[in-house]
Amino acid sequence: MKIGIIGAGQLGRMLALAGYPLALQFRFLDPGTNTPGGQVAPIIPGAFNDSGSLKRLASGADLITYEFENVPVHALERISKYCHCLPPTDALRVSQDRLLEKELFGRLGIPVPPSCAVDTQSDLERAIAEIGLPAMLKTRHLGYDGRGQFHLSKRSQVDEAWRSLGGVPLILERFIEFDSEVSIIGARSTRGETRCYPLAGNTHSQGILRLSRAPLRRPAQQRRAEQYLNRLLDYFGYAGVLTVEFFVRDGRLIANEMAPRVHNSGHWTIEGAVTSQFENHLRAITGLPLGDTRAVGHAAMVNLIGEMPDEKRVLALPGVHFHNYGKEPRPGRKLGHCTVVARSAAERDALLRKLVRLVPR
Amino acid sequence: MKIGIIGAGQLGRMLALAGYPLALQFRFLDPGTNTPGGQVAPIIPGAFNDSGSLKRLASGADLITYEFENVPVHALERISKYCHCLPPTDALRVSQDRLLEKELFGRLGIPVPPSCAVDTQSDLERAIAEIGLPAMLKTRHLGYDGRGQFHLSKRSQVDEAWRSLGGVPLILERFIEFDSEVSIIGARSTRGETRCYPLAGNTHSQGILRLSRAPLRRPAQQRRAEQYLNRLLDYFGYAGVLTVEFFVRDGRLIANEMAPRVHNSGHWTIEGAVTSQFENHLRAITGLPLGDTRAVGHAAMVNLIGEMPDEKRVLALPGVHFHNYGKEPRPGRKLGHCTVVARSAAERDALLRKLVRLVPR
Repeated sequence: MKIGIIGAGQLGRMLALAGYPLALQFRFLDPGTNTPGGQVAPIIPGAFNDSGSLKRLASGADLITYEFENVPVHALERISKYCHCLPPTDALRVSQDRLLEKELFGRLGIPVPPSCAVDTQSDLERAIAEIGLPAMLKTRHLGYDGRGQFHLSKRSQVDEAWRSLGGVPLILERFIEFDSEVSIIGARSTRGETRCYPLAGNTHSQGILRLSRAPLRRPAQQRRAEQYLNRLLDYFGYAGVLTVEFFVRDGRLIANEMAPRVHNSGHWTIEGAVTSQFENHLRAITGLPLGDTRAVGHAAMVNLIGEMPDEKRVLALPGVHFHNYGKEPRPGRKLGHCTVVARSAAERDALLRKLVRLVPR
Repeated sequence: MKIGIIGAGQLGRMLALAGYPLALQFRFLDPGTNTPGGQVAPIIPGAFNDSGSLKRLASGADLITYEFENVPVHALERISKYCHCLPPTDALRVSQDRLLEKELFGRLGIPVPPSCAVDTQSDLERAIAEIGLPAMLKTRHLGYDGRGQFHLSKRSQVDEAWRSLGGVPLILERFIEFDSEVSIIGARSTRGETRCYPLAGNTHSQGILRLSRAPLRRPAQQRRAEQYLNRLLDYFGYAGVLTVEFFVRDGRLIANEMAPRVHNSGHWTIEGAVTSQFENHLRAITGLPLGDTRAVGHAAMVNLIGEMPDEKRVLALPGVHFHNYGKEPRPGRKLGHCTVVARSAAERDALLRKLVRLVPR
């Protein structure tokens, strides 16, 4: 079976590497040159909304999927006439708009921070009066890795916040003083089968994920997160992998956002779970039985951002798995990740400390 | 770093898939069309002894390796002038000739079955007188998966054996009534570091490997096999993965043959060991630190030969990993393999029984 993937970043690359053992074949569409995906499968160079390129991708594929959520929905809808495209575009549309996303979460009984749409500076003033401070002003569309966000702690910052983000549709959200951040990743197949991975505990810095640990052994939160995720999977009649990130405050989960795709906080599943998120995404969209999502030990994943560590020193640590995406280094860019898997959480954390010392900050 | 691989079969394919996360790039040389390797990396179509194709492979590569031991040595020696080639051609030369191989094993104190060179029918008569029956008559060169072998149990079969194999250099070996068959796989890096995997227990049928189980927990045999393997690694100043297959009789190891490459009996290491044999071969030839070779559980690997099982039924078994090489089915052809990994040998064997029921025989 031939899979067309829109986007040839590291997520697409890891999808292809997970799908080759199933004899799936891959082709990417991406405007970039020397992309991570293009190093492991043929690539059609072209913009994500270029109908000629999209048609070429569709004509050589049995199925289309995407590796990031900023693919134009209208482009995907057009291509869907030629080739089946999963996950469903409804999920993509909702994930592209923080307001729609929060509204849907609310309708499905998934707790969210109080929020308000903001289109004008006076909307912003009203929203602050309603929600209070501190709050996060965010663009409704095209935000990722902390971009398009402004942390408002005092009223005197309103002008600065407006200058920084104003002019596009915005949303103001109550700032959650969270105790921790977690994410749940699950898959639903075209046959309606669902599976959830153990919760991962995530650490962000400057809006970018730095570290994930899994499995988090918090049974009550795990059950609750699975309930929430399953409501979304059912609502969309979903097929593929879906991720939801949560803040945790006093043991309660408060949804931050969802991503209709494999997720950075699930990279630990390559070595740390029986079946990786990448393989399960492909099994889900191709209608194969889903694979076992259990953890095989205690895993941690460290992102390699901006600058690579000394490969030889990293590989000399026993039990460390190195993933180099083959990208040119650039500040803030995700260049790779390392995963450690151990028999106990204590052993994992000891190995993690050694690893983190080798990773440039 | 760019690696050229001579041969684009499943071993080459799995090398590329193991090397992509290390940001290695691959190109294959193979005369075949729609090869397993060619589905995951660019391919130069050409014969293994075609100097133009070999030069093309060398010119685009930093390092050359091979995935099977029937590459012509003289071709490799020629290409070595343009590009470094590992494992060393001396090991390749020895592995291509059962007589040289047995002689070397003998010199290094590695037990082998009694054997005699056979070039004429009268040599064969003399060899039988010396070695006794039952015995195996084998071609010295180009044997694999049981081809080029004749089992001689009575003198009256001499004519038939000679008609079947005579005319090329042969070797007669005492037939070993073995209790079991095992293999050891190890790696030596260009920096001289060595690592051995746990022994695998192997089951052959009609000369083709059907099933491997690892780790075999036989400490005395493990120590002995590692000694033998290390003698070979040292002798050749080896770089890469080397495999030795043994018969086991009354607890003693008797060497059958060696392969200067990753090996079918090591496919379990992809999911069943911390670092796979494929990744360690690449780490070894590129001078990176070798990865941990410990087993992460109890693994078994089942070859899929001639006909594929129902993919959906196999994937529905929890904990089964499916590897489809993307080949056209043909009787006797290795089309893929499945690996199961479990926490105990008993659990592994229970899962294996379910799996084996789904595999066509």
